[in-house]
Amino acid sequence: MDLRTQIQEKINQKTKPLGALGKLEALATQICLLQETLSPSLQNPHIVVFAADHGIAEEGVSAYPQEVTYQMVYNFLRGGAAINVFAKQHQIQLEIVDAGVKHTFPENLLLWQHKIDFGTKNFLNSPAMTEAQLQKSLDYGKKIIQHIRSRNCNIVGLGEMGIGNTSSASVLISLLLNIPIELCVGAGTGLNSQQIEYKTNVLRKAIETHKLPESSPYTILQYFGGYEITQMVGAMLEAQKEKMLVLIDGFIASTAFLVAYQIEPKMIANAIFCHKSAEQGHQTLLERLGVEPLLDLQMRLGEGTGCAVAYPIVVSAVEFINKMVSFADAKVSSKS
Amino acid sequence: MDLRTQIQEKINQKTKPLGALGKLEALATQICLLQETLSPSLQNPHIVVFAADHGIAEEGVSAYPQEVTYQMVYNFLRGGAAINVFAKQHQIQLEIVDAGVKHTFPENLLLWQHKIDFGTKNFLNSPAMTEAQLQKSLDYGKKIIQHIRSRNCNIVGLGEMGIGNTSSASVLISLLLNIPIELCVGAGTGLNSQQIEYKTNVLRKAIETHKLPESSPYTILQYFGGYEITQMVGAMLEAQKEKMLVLIDGFIASTAFLVAYQIEPKMIANAIFCHKSAEQGHQTLLERLGVEPLLDLQMRLGEGTGCAVAYPIVVSAVEFINKMVSFADAKVSSKS
Repeated sequence: MDLRTQIQEKINQKTKPLGALGKLEALATQICLLQETLSPSLQNPHIVVFAADHGIAEEGVSAYPQEVTYQMVYNFLRGGAAINVFAKQHQIQLEIVDAGVKHTFPENLLLWQHKIDFGTKNFLNSPAMTEAQLQKSLDYGKKIIQHIRSRNCNIVGLGEMGIGNTSSASVLISLLLNIPIELCVGAGTGLNSQQIEYKTNVLRKAIETHKLPESSPYTILQYFGGYEITQMVGAMLEAQKEKMLVLIDGFIASTAFLVAYQIEPKMIANAIFCHKSAEQGHQTLLERLGVEPLLDLQMRLGEGTGCAVAYPIVVSAVEFINKMVSFADAKVSSKS
Repeated sequence: MDLRTQIQEKINQKTKPLGALGKLEALATQICLLQETLSPSLQNPHIVVFAADHGIAEEGVSAYPQEVTYQMVYNFLRGGAAINVFAKQHQIQLEIVDAGVKHTFPENLLLWQHKIDFGTKNFLNSPAMTEAQLQKSLDYGKKIIQHIRSRNCNIVGLGEMGIGNTSSASVLISLLLNIPIELCVGAGTGLNSQQIEYKTNVLRKAIETHKLPESSPYTILQYFGGYEITQMVGAMLEAQKEKMLVLIDGFIASTAFLVAYQIEPKMIANAIFCHKSAEQGHQTLLERLGVEPLLDLQMRLGEGTGCAVAYPIVVSAVEFINKMVSFADAKVSSKS
C-alpha cells in the first residue's frame, strides 16, 4: 500500500463520517506526504518578515509615504504591529529582515541586516536591480532559511512590508502569467478608483518600456521585483529543498511563490495558501494557480498576518490525524 | 462620541491601512459592542455538546445506525472525537449533555444527565415531543448556561450529536423560513443522491401530515425538533440574556439559532457564525440570514467542531484591538 493510500485509510478510520473534516483532511494528507509519515508534526514555527523599499514609489502609486516602510520595521522590532500580536498568540517565532529599506538602521537591533541597497531603482526608467543584486537577494533568502532550519523549524511563513510593493507584484503577475495588467492591479493600502487607474497606467508604461514578455522568471524578477520579493523567492526555493512547509500569505507573498513555482514546480507540495487577500490581483493569481486558500477574511495587510491567523488551522489538521481515535478503538459502528 | 464611533476610531488608529484586517475588524467591533467596552476579553471559553436521538431515524434517513449517537457520547467522554482534539488544542472547556439519547448511561460519568426521553417520537406519525417536554428542554438548556456563566465564562460554543438530526433541521428551516424542503436537504453523514431523494420525500410527507405552516417557532420546534436542538435553543436564549458571545457551529446549530432568533431577534448581536457547512441546507439558511461565517473549510461534522476550529480567529480579533499600537505611539506616518 503506498503512502497516500495509507494516509487516506488512517483518515477514513477516524470516528467521523467520511470526508467530514473537508479541507483539514486535504491539509493533513499534504503534510503527511511532504514529511513522508503517518504521524506528522509541526516544529518550532517561524514567520520571517522581509522589508524593502521600491523606486516606483516615487511615482505616487501608494496611499502611504515611503518612510512608513522603515517606521514599520521599528514597529515590528518593538512588538506593536499586527504580525507581532498574531505571532505571539500562536507562539510563532518572528524574524525581521532589512532586505533593502531606504534607511540606515543602527547595528544593535534584532534585525537581519540583509540590505541589498536603499530600495530598488524606479522600474519605470531602468531595471529595478542588477543581475548581481538579484543573485545576492536569492542567496540571502536561502541563508535565513538555513538558519531557522538549523533551529529545527519545519514550517515557515513568509511576510513582507514595503511601500509600493503591490505595484511590483502586479507587474510580475501580469508578465509571468501573461494576464492584462488591469486585472492585476488593486487598491493596495487604500487607493480610490481614480488612483488605481493612474497606478495601472504607470505600470502599463513600465511594461511597455522594457518589453519583457516571454522572458525567464529571473529576468522578470530583476526588472520589476523588489528586494523583499526576491529574498522571499530565495527563501521559498531553499525551504522546498529542505522539505519544509511554507505558509503563503497574501498578494505579495503569493507573487513570490509564483516566481519560485515557475523555477521549481515541486514547490506546490510545500505550499499552504493561508488566505485570500481583498487585493484583486491576488484573486486572479489564485484562480490561475487553481488553489483555494484556508481563509477568506477580507484581510489585505501583508506582514505575514494571513499566515499567522491561519496557522492554528494547520495545527488542527495535524492534531486530528494524530490524536482522534478510530472506529475500532472507540467501538463506534461505521457506516451501515 | 458613541461607543460604535469610539471603537471605529480605536481600530482606525492601529498601525495598518484602514480596514486592512477585514472581518477581524467587524468581529472586534461586534464583541466590543456586546461587552460595552473598548477593551474586550474572552473568558473561560466553553463548548457544550448536546446529544439526542430521533424517532425519524427509523425511516432510514441516515447513513449511520442509531447506536452511533450513544457510542459517540462515550467517545466524547473518553476524549477521542474530533471535538475533544480541537477543544484541547485551544484550551476550551468541553461539556457533554445527554439531552435525549436512546441509551441508559451509568450515573458516574462526567455527563450532564438532561435526558428528556429515549429519543423523540417519529415525526412522520406524531409530534416529536409534547409541549411539556419542549418546555423542560428549554429549561435544561438555560440551566447549563447558568452553570458555565457562574464559572465566569463569557463565550460559549454549542455543538451536537444525533443520528437523524439533519432531517429534523431540514424540516425546521423549511417551515420557519417558508423554503421548499428540497432546498433544505443534504447528504447528512454521507447519503448518495438516491438516498437524498428518499429522505426528501419522507420529510415532505411529514410536513404534509401535520400541516403547520404559519405556526409559532415553539410549535414547529415541538412537532419536528430534536432534544439536542431544543436544549440548544434554550441555551442560546439564556446566553443572550447574559450578554455572552455564542459561537454558532454548522447546519444543526444554525437551525437552533434560527429558532432562537425568531423568538428573540436581539440574539444576532451575540452570534458569531463560525463556519459554512458543506450541507446544502446550511448555505440556504446562511443566505437567508445574510451572514457570512468565518470559515469555509467544507467541514460537515457537527459536535461544535466549527466553533473550536474558528475560535482562535475570534481570539485574534480581541488581541489586535487590545494589543496593536497606534500610529502616534509607534511614530508611523499615516495615509498621505
